[in-house]
Formats: sequence, structure tokens, C-alpha cells
Amino acid sequence: MHQLFVHHVYFWLYEPENKEIRDKFEKALMVLVKVETIIDYHLGIPAATNRDVIDTSYTYSLLVTFKSLEDQEIYQSHPTHLKFIDDCNDLWDKVVVYDSVSI
Amino acid sequence: MHQLFVHHVYFWLYEPENKEIRDKFEKALMVLVKVETIIDYHLGIPAATNRDVIDTSYTYSLLVTFKSLEDQEIYQSHPTHLKFIDDCNDLWDKVVVYDSVSI
Repeated sequence: MHQLFVHHVYFWLYEPENKEIRDKFEKALMVLVKVETIIDYHLGIPAATNRDVIDTSYTYSLLVTFKSLEDQEIYQSHPTHLKFIDDCNDLWDKVVVYDSVSI
Repeated sequence: MHQLFVHHVYFWLYEPENKEIRDKFEKALMVLVKVETIIDYHLGIPAATNRDVIDTSYTYSLLVTFKSLEDQEIYQSHPTHLKFIDDCNDLWDKVVVYDSVSI
């Protein structure tokens, strides 16, 4: 993935312990990552690691890679992405995104 | 990378505009990612995207994937990683790490 566009999103849900909400959110993530311009993805939760510099406070991590910024823009406005936001944006309290291009 | 351990580190350098320091840091990153237990990596800088939820304030992004938590632990204590920290930890003001395992 050395040359790819990396889009990493961390979600803090309002109810991180609510199994029904977690199930709904995980299913929505699995649909989301089917957007055609996504090269590869990782759907994650915090690992068991714990040092001072590690932020373990988020609920879900969504990492997706694209060939280019343009492919990422197609994803942003894709109906599948818009439906994900529409269906799930009342579930999260905070979202932080880091977009990175290769050095 | 669906099933991998994802280790994503964001660095805020004290002198993000200093070309000499950037060169030194980038070279050190390129050596760091040769640690044998790393499956794949991405060395990044903030993309040109800019929305409210996007954090574009970091200087460098280091994304590495591992087969397992154990392989990540080997990396943490690997001489190459310890040398990277020793050589470069006076360059960064802040580091934030997010470790994620698959849902």
C-alpha cells in the first residue's frame, strides 16, 4: 500500500457497550467497504495494547485505501457512503479522520 | 489486510517546516519499516483534503500492519525500532498511536 491514499476514520459511539448498536454499526461498515474505488480496508476495534501514547478510547476504526485522491472523492459522494452517514451518524459522538498521501 | 493488526502512529514534529529535519526523519522511517515482522506499511503526510472532521495538523503518519499482536511486540522491542526512537525522539513534540485488531 506504499503509494496509496490512506483514509483512516476513528469513531466514538455514544453507546460503545450497546450490543444492538454495535451490531448495526458493524453491518453498516461491512456494506460501506464495498464501494468500488476502495482498494483494501480494515475494520477494527482497539487492540489490547496500552501505553501512554496509545489512544484506546475510540470504539471503531475504519481504514480504507484508494489509488488516488480522486478515487477517495468518488467514495465520499458515493450513494453507499451517503447512506452509511444517513443511517449511522446519530450513533457517533465524535469522528476523527486522518487522510495521508505517500511521502 | 482485513485480518491484520494495524498500528498507526501520527507524529507532530517540533519543526515541521525544517527540510533537514524532515529528510532525517523520512530516512529514519524508511529504515524502520524494514523490521521483518512488518507485513506492509505506508509512510504519509497529510493529504490535501480538508473538512471539519479531518485532522491535518500532524507532520508524518506511519502505518504498519502485522500478522498478530505478538509480531507487533517483536517490532516494539526490535533494535531497529529502539534505534529509531533513540535517534528521533527529540524531533517530535507529540505522538499519538492507534492500534486496531479486526472486528
